[in-house]
Amino acid sequence: MYSFTNDYSEGAHPRIMDALAAANMDQDTGYGEDRFSLAAIDQFKRLLNRDDLAIHLLVGGTQTNMIAISSFLRPHEAAIAAVTGHINVHETGAIEATGHKVIAVPGAPGGKLDPAAIQSALDTHTDEHMVKPKLVYISDTTEIGGVYTKAEIEALHAFCKAHQLILYLDGARLGSALTSSENNLTLRDLPDLVDAFYIGGTKNGALLGEALVICNDALKEDFRYMIKQKGALLAKGRVIGIQFLELFRDDLYYQLADHANHMAAKLAQAIRESGYRFFTESASNQIFPIFSNSLIEQLRKNFSFATWEKVDVSHTAVRLVTSWATKEDQVDAFIDALKKGAKSLSAVEK
Amino acid sequence: MYSFTNDYSEGAHPRIMDALAAANMDQDTGYGEDRFSLAAIDQFKRLLNRDDLAIHLLVGGTQTNMIAISSFLRPHEAAIAAVTGHINVHETGAIEATGHKVIAVPGAPGGKLDPAAIQSALDTHTDEHMVKPKLVYISDTTEIGGVYTKAEIEALHAFCKAHQLILYLDGARLGSALTSSENNLTLRDLPDLVDAFYIGGTKNGALLGEALVICNDALKEDFRYMIKQKGALLAKGRVIGIQFLELFRDDLYYQLADHANHMAAKLAQAIRESGYRFFTESASNQIFPIFSNSLIEQLRKNFSFATWEKVDVSHTAVRLVTSWATKEDQVDAFIDALKKGAKSLSAVEK
Amino acid sequence: MYSFTNDYSEGAHPRIMDALAAANMDQDTGYGEDRFSLAAIDQFKRLLNRDDLAIHLLVGGTQTNMIAISSFLRPHEAAIAAVTGHINVHETGAIEATGHKVIAVPGAPGGKLDPAAIQSALDTHTDEHMVKPKLVYISDTTEIGGVYTKAEIEALHAFCKAHQLILYLDGARLGSALTSSENNLTLRDLPDLVDAFYIGGTKNGALLGEALVICNDALKEDFRYMIKQKGALLAKGRVIGIQFLELFRDDLYYQLADHANHMAAKLAQAIRESGYRFFTESASNQIFPIFSNSLIEQLRKNFSFATWEKVDVSHTAVRLVTSWATKEDQVDAFIDALKKGAKSLSAVEK
Amino acid sequence: MYSFTNDYSEGAHPRIMDALAAANMDQDTGYGEDRFSLAAIDQFKRLLNRDDLAIHLLVGGTQTNMIAISSFLRPHEAAIAAVTGHINVHETGAIEATGHKVIAVPGAPGGKLDPAAIQSALDTHTDEHMVKPKLVYISDTTEIGGVYTKAEIEALHAFCKAHQLILYLDGARLGSALTSSENNLTLRDLPDLVDAFYIGGTKNGALLGEALVICNDALKEDFRYMIKQKGALLAKGRVIGIQFLELFRDDLYYQLADHANHMAAKLAQAIRESGYRFFTESASNQIFPIFSNSLIEQLRKNFSFATWEKVDVSHTAVRLVTSWATKEDQVDAFIDALKKGAKSLSAVEK
Repeated sequence: MYSFTNDYSEGAHPRIMDALAAANMDQDTGYGEDRFSLAAIDQFKRLLNRDDLAIHLLVGGTQTNMIAISSFLRPHEAAIAAVTGHINVHETGAIEATGHKVIAVPGAPGGKLDPAAIQSALDTHTDEHMVKPKLVYISDTTEIGGVYTKAEIEALHAFCKAHQLILYLDGARLGSALTSSENNLTLRDLPDLVDAFYIGGTKNGALLGEALVICNDALKEDFRYMIKQKGALLAKGRVIGIQFLELFRDDLYYQLADHANHMAAKLAQAIRESGYRFFTESASNQIFPIFSNSLIEQLRKNFSFATWEKVDVSHTAVRLVTSWATKEDQVDAFIDALKKGAKSLSAVEK
Repeated sequence: MYSFTNDYSEGAHPRIMDALAAANMDQDTGYGEDRFSLAAIDQFKRLLNRDDLAIHLLVGGTQTNMIAISSFLRPHEAAIAAVTGHINVHETGAIEATGHKVIAVPGAPGGKLDPAAIQSALDTHTDEHMVKPKLVYISDTTEIGGVYTKAEIEALHAFCKAHQLILYLDGARLGSALTSSENNLTLRDLPDLVDAFYIGGTKNGALLGEALVICNDALKEDFRYMIKQKGALLAKGRVIGIQFLELFRDDLYYQLADHANHMAAKLAQAIRESGYRFFTESASNQIFPIFSNSLIEQLRKNFSFATWEKVDVSHTAVRLVTSWATKEDQVDAFIDALKKGAKSLSAVEK
Repeated sequence: MYSFTNDYSEGAHPRIMDALAAANMDQDTGYGEDRFSLAAIDQFKRLLNRDDLAIHLLVGGTQTNMIAISSFLRPHEAAIAAVTGHINVHETGAIEATGHKVIAVPGAPGGKLDPAAIQSALDTHTDEHMVKPKLVYISDTTEIGGVYTKAEIEALHAFCKAHQLILYLDGARLGSALTSSENNLTLRDLPDLVDAFYIGGTKNGALLGEALVICNDALKEDFRYMIKQKGALLAKGRVIGIQFLELFRDDLYYQLADHANHMAAKLAQAIRESGYRFFTESASNQIFPIFSNSLIEQLRKNFSFATWEKVDVSHTAVRLVTSWATKEDQVDAFIDALKKGAKSLSAVEK
Repeated sequence: MYSFTNDYSEGAHPRIMDALAAANMDQDTGYGEDRFSLAAIDQFKRLLNRDDLAIHLLVGGTQTNMIAISSFLRPHEAAIAAVTGHINVHETGAIEATGHKVIAVPGAPGGKLDPAAIQSALDTHTDEHMVKPKLVYISDTTEIGGVYTKAEIEALHAFCKAHQLILYLDGARLGSALTSSENNLTLRDLPDLVDAFYIGGTKNGALLGEALVICNDALKEDFRYMIKQKGALLAKGRVIGIQFLELFRDDLYYQLADHANHMAAKLAQAIRESGYRFFTESASNQIFPIFSNSLIEQLRKNFSFATWEKVDVSHTAVRLVTSWATKEDQVDAFIDALKKGAKSLSAVEK
């Protein structure tokens, strides 16, 4: 049984495990002030070509979103997100638990937000009887595999600036985005285009770890207090520092994401060539083909993956996720099983 | 330079690093439902001899306190803690950030709470114009090295039961407590005596990880929602599961804590024999000798440690912390330096 | 200039002003434990024929919703409301500010919720990665004038009971609902059908005041703590007690609401007879006719009222609200102005 | 039975009741934007000689404290208060419920704060593992009758400015303070000395109502959102506007407070002359004599008042509160009863 269920099924890339082992018995300072964390932050500043960024290494994505957004907003201010946005659906109300409404607006294709969607939220929130929209939450890749172009992010940036909105980018799968065939954005572009973003480690080769980058000076003050207050200041912060130091040495991060994307693309191409449609288009490490329920049953004998949404009485969209760890022979085996499965099914079942 | 600053200066015990490496490429389920986490929880149930416990593996101590306490309390209910209690001082208001007041009461010696202290909080909170005291927070060992006896915990248990209070034990340093020369409590005693407690991994050999044990049925419902909402549901939950599985195999946990305590005891004995007093007595891995400022300056040439509290114009209490990783030859070197330092100082400076 | 803008443009009904004046210099206990408040609560129990209800007199509607809902829910639980629901739109995120998500679902006509809408929220919230829907918020009349039938409330009651959901009814305009021509519900029916509801005073003759009735035993404990914590325990609680005592003496409450409904019905009939359509049907004290922008401009010379929603380039839905204080001669004057205005406008403008 | 229990036992001053009645049937705008509220605010600006103040009319004291403090602070920031401070004890954790710790420090005599007390809180809160002290909460008069001198407030102002702390003054009993024999402060001094304060109406002649004055520009933005979100934006805001307009016309406010103070002073003098001591000195409308339990029992046959604190086995401090409504003949009757009671008791009981 091989899993295409998610991109966090394995541990960490071997180079990371080695780095953790190599530094294991060195004594160092706690709470993220160790030499590894400091070096990882310096490395990010060099890669981003900006000395003025405030960078914090955190444990997980929901945690990062919750701490950042609750730190950035005053009590009456709200976040705007696509209805499919992670903070709107899959974080158990973490943002609301810090006191802020998430205003969900219909996303553009691929789960992306555009200025028109944000404008619609502004139009319906006009006085003090309603929350004040203040932060725009986007994710790249999105929760359903969408990849933003540089022009799209620039348009959001311009809109947010014109309307005094904070633009925040959730980069849980930023590796996959930046190495997508549809991408023309670089990591170095981001600090000029968004107020804050995070670079996801957990889903691209680390055991855990997300690097939050705060670009806007007005949002930087006292941020370590927020981390501690939300229970996210790791005593052995080195555990994250060591990992990010290794992940961004020699472009490992990009190589891992690129592998994930290629494995997904190989799957997608074979699925498309076999005549199947997709629930939503994606040039990232998550793809959403529509299979018959009979076929799904057959495939599940050897592969695990998530069902996404019922399409009709006999068809369902599924989600296949690849990662840095995905084995190409298993991708081939899946394609094989797909073709065999399809053959064995009657036209109706197919 | 050797550090006695805290018990989280190194990575993890080598057996844990090996266990992480061994399982690294196995695929498994996310969010703490992997086989390692489930096995670690089963192992705890066996060790605690109770099938009915709800056990959750979390990342850090402040996080665990915050999630547990905010889950257990209704909005108007408050936690009672010693003034030295971690939740009262060193968690950046994490409990208050979830809406609950911490009622700080003067602790008994060693930073411990007793029924009289709790009664004083009940006496001054009598109607709906004040918060309602509902949960009693204790830590074992305490923040200043105190160790509870079984009789003391039993007295707290009886008092809390009589007054419908929840008794919660912070076990960030439970290993040191259970292996202390002053201890007569066993891990297996705890589920009968407290409503919930956690077993600290971070400070006793793990990279990170605390195991929360909920004993009281009334506090168990929907707890995973709380974990997720507070950003604490680790995607690769296996990282904690693997560590606890190894830590409690063959009593490694106790051996590590025992080592830490012995190293502290060796330091304490030599310090006492050299004629120094202590700020507070401790039979745990944290000791608080009082040194002259001149001596402290000398010792700091080769050792790092925290100052705790100014005692008089020329003397200061310091905190020396040992851990599973403390090297005995460094303990000997410290004792040596202490003796030499003392010799070289005039009677006044000493 | 006469206002049909809302139902809180004047002070209180003269009988209430007299009652306040009569009791003014009597000394009594503070914080809602005075004889007037206790008598008002007793009077409600008699009227509702239930001794076991917990009744609390509060100041305003948003305040009542916020205190009740945050008291009833655990941190991960959410409220379900129609998209037009007051808590979803017009309370500046008050519910979210207490930590709870509001799940907005499309309402049935008239802004009412039905079991199918609630089921849709349950279907999309299935595990601990999402909030747990726990409370159903309805308002009667709804924010857009809808009135629930007894059968509709019974259906919601049955559904909520079957799914362990709390049913909460916002009765800011309960007077208008209970005296509506479409209503077949009595005040006395409510305790058996909902877990909690409130009887609105502010919009039906009082200076301020809403009476929260908690019917479900499980939701009653320690509620006065919640009131105090949210800043809603009025020092001179008598101010609300005196008003409700008077409002429900000799059915004044019903007479006032009935007057408001009749004034709205008279307006609606004349508008309908003049050939205008309505944005939404309403048999309550709020009506939503669609007028041409030209006509609106004319009417506004002598009457103030709110615009509701743009219908097309030249037509807009407006909201006309009547109250206990609405003068019939002003209703007649409005109808007159409408007819004259319509006559003076060309067919295109009309 | 006459009550000296508190200063909110009666309704409102007759002039206020008349003003409410006179304006009762005038139509006006809701939510505090009516002509009465606007005029009351203008009147305050004239009285305070400052056009730039942001003034909001709210319902009650706990509500005002909670909204102001939660609006002024970021999530990790805390309020410093005297241990006797209202927000620390008697608001059911309202401040904590908005996420902020209250740091309680021992007050100077009379329940007042001084720079040394604030400094002690700064000294113990030094990094991101602890909350950040940011707002200083004082009350004038204090909860135990203390009255600040102008020099004391100036010293607090200078200290807060030097340490970037917000100085907030709770004026629930500001009338009594400003008319106290110990006072040398004027209302007009306050905007230059504090960042925000409120002028209490409830305890000095109004049915309800507190006027929050925000002096510091940085704290003014979007404040009406906060009011609405906390359920405090009264639909018929006129109810408060009319009252404050009347209270500050022709110095009624000062006359009422002056009467309360004089009645308290008359009581205090007689008590002192009869040989009784006081628990704490007070030149305000609250006094705290120490009586024998036997005497208390006798006095309670005709007067109600609160016991404050047990002093020894047979003596208790009580609290006598006077108000604008206190009748002088009842003050005389109390003095009489005191003298008779004292005579009838043996020396031991006295």
